[in-house]
Amino acid sequence: MTRTVYDLCGANDVRFSPYCWRTRMALAHKGLTAEFLPWRFTEPERLEFSGSRTVPVLVDGSEVVSDSWRIANYLEATYAESPSLFGGDPGLSGFVNAWADAVLVPAIAKCVVSDILDRIEPVDRSYFRASREERFGMTLEALAADRQIYQQALDVVLTPLRVCLRRQPWLSGPVAAYADYSVFGVFQWARLISPDDVIAADDPVSEWRGKMLDRFDGLGRKFAAAT
Amino acid sequence: MTRTVYDLCGANDVRFSPYCWRTRMALAHKGLTAEFLPWRFTEPERLEFSGSRTVPVLVDGSEVVSDSWRIANYLEATYAESPSLFGGDPGLSGFVNAWADAVLVPAIAKCVVSDILDRIEPVDRSYFRASREERFGMTLEALAADRQIYQQALDVVLTPLRVCLRRQPWLSGPVAAYADYSVFGVFQWARLISPDDVIAADDPVSEWRGKMLDRFDGLGRKFAAAT
Repeated sequence: MTRTVYDLCGANDVRFSPYCWRTRMALAHKGLTAEFLPWRFTEPERLEFSGSRTVPVLVDGSEVVSDSWRIANYLEATYAESPSLFGGDPGLSGFVNAWADAVLVPAIAKCVVSDILDRIEPVDRSYFRASREERFGMTLEALAADRQIYQQALDVVLTPLRVCLRRQPWLSGPVAAYADYSVFGVFQWARLISPDDVIAADDPVSEWRGKMLDRFDGLGRKFAAAT
Repeated sequence: MTRTVYDLCGANDVRFSPYCWRTRMALAHKGLTAEFLPWRFTEPERLEFSGSRTVPVLVDGSEVVSDSWRIANYLEATYAESPSLFGGDPGLSGFVNAWADAVLVPAIAKCVVSDILDRIEPVDRSYFRASREERFGMTLEALAADRQIYQQALDVVLTPLRVCLRRQPWLSGPVAAYADYSVFGVFQWARLISPDDVIAADDPVSEWRGKMLDRFDGLGRKFAAAT
């Protein structure tokens, strides 16, 4: 059976979507392989078959599933005999996933979004600049100028991760699972696009990210950090 | 066996500590009864036996446990045959608990802290004002004047709860458990001290809170909302 994932792609084949990383880690967790097809911001027509305008889109045999959270639930239900992504019920993984989307993504985005321009092909830059400047209500240059302020705000946002990771090895508990991938995807996005690390080296979150990068034979390290 | 909880108490016997509410709900979840002894901010000497300066403090036979999170873990381990607070491993409940402490408590505190002055005995007011004004770096009156701004900020903070509660009946999944109590305690605190509801009536979080107030024969409603 052919299994493919439409995967956001920048210049030099960098795969930096936080949501596609969730799907990549979830597939590895389930012991499933897939071909990750590069897709660019300016290719909406290639996704039309799926009804989605964003990636990831998973094509698993005759099944088409979009949205990383729905993909995770699909994989959990379809490959129920493989290691669980949720430890039974999605329950609190859904909260962590929603926290990562609603709080962590915007907090990190304000720090690193201006760096994305250098990581995508020239053809994608005009779309990217216009859509992001509209979202944040300011220019990418204005965001970059205040990076230090956004980094301080991010340090506060990371508090629940720190508290949790001081007590236990993974967010999910004794075994890494989807909640870890939900959050890791966002840090992997930052790592791949920004030369400035958003996590301080002595932060417990940094140690956890290192362990996440090591998982599945260093899957996360197969893409070099931005320099 | 005698089981007691030292429980923060304001004027008119209002029991408004978010952390004590977590313990109250956790005991009910486990089917355990306890006497809740009223304790005031200005009575640190009554807690000296516990080594803690804050409530809740649980005295369970010969065991003394302080800190709501440690109490929850103690109850889970000690009363393992009763319904689980964590669905097995504390795992993600720890993240939600840490999020509630680090993010939700300060966001709600900025909205309601000035109302607490009216809910506590005159003897406690001077300690309360001094400690809170130091914590927030401004007077209680300055906080009250900007309540609308803090309410708007809180609306954003609630996003992960909303997303999660649109998908499932409880934060913990199909069955309410400790993650729900972690968050509920904070809203119960607001409900008991502030006449202005911090949750909009049409917010999915409001419906969930209503169900939380109904639990255990309406335990949460045995204390009237502030008016």
